[in-house]
Amino acid sequence: MSQDPFIEKIEHIGIAVKDIDAANDLYTKLLGIVPYKMETVDSESVITSFFQVGESKIELVCATEEDSPVNKFINHRGPGVHHIAFAVKDIIKSMEYLKEQGFKLINDKPKRGADNKWVCFVHPKSVDGVLIELCQDVLEE
Amino acid sequence: MSQDPFIEKIEHIGIAVKDIDAANDLYTKLLGIVPYKMETVDSESVITSFFQVGESKIELVCATEEDSPVNKFINHRGPGVHHIAFAVKDIIKSMEYLKEQGFKLINDKPKRGADNKWVCFVHPKSVDGVLIELCQDVLEE
Repeated sequence: MSQDPFIEKIEHIGIAVKDIDAANDLYTKLLGIVPYKMETVDSESVITSFFQVGESKIELVCATEEDSPVNKFINHRGPGVHHIAFAVKDIIKSMEYLKEQGFKLINDKPKRGADNKWVCFVHPKSVDGVLIELCQDVLEE
Repeated sequence: MSQDPFIEKIEHIGIAVKDIDAANDLYTKLLGIVPYKMETVDSESVITSFFQVGESKIELVCATEEDSPVNKFINHRGPGVHHIAFAVKDIIKSMEYLKEQGFKLINDKPKRGADNKWVCFVHPKSVDGVLIELCQDVLEE
């Protein structure tokens, strides 16, 4: 696997925020660009907002329900970087590889995430405190 | 400024770690690649290790002195994502723009950072908990 890197790029950096409108204003000033889209992800109880930066994105993530995991993160650590998402060529093979290497996956099968992706999360306890997401584009049916 | 984005790409994501050798092993397994270099930055009291991922890098950052700012971060929040660094075309102009927008810069002038860069940090209090770094390549003299 090390001869053929399975990670193509940083797909996005997820940033947990308390107020999506205030965060959109802040990041518009910081990055000098406006978000290209906003999207609600019901399965995660979040609303997201995306800024394109080179080949990657900054994804603002804001809870839509009080008990959303993103709120638990903010209550524990404060707002800030929530996860790093890597684009992979083959999410199933990547998940198998990471399991073989001893990483703990949060979901056993890829699930639908924001921005038309299949996603899988790796538990931060197995990555020294960093929540990792794998992403693969959903192919057209 | 919003018509001509001054940020070119995510230059790197800085990750605070307690043990650079253990973290190198962990990220080699996670990313399926080995670090392309390690570098000590005396001005920051850190040793760094770099992995190339697409156009960006993962930078592991480990304190070399007990009172290094990176250790304060780890003692306060635990190991994890420490900062996001953006590559900019013109660091002086970018710093002026951010000051005009009300962001608080940690250093008034660019300083030398790892990987042959001019760098400037933006205070996390003005970016909702996220430490931002601007980077510009040092030109050959």
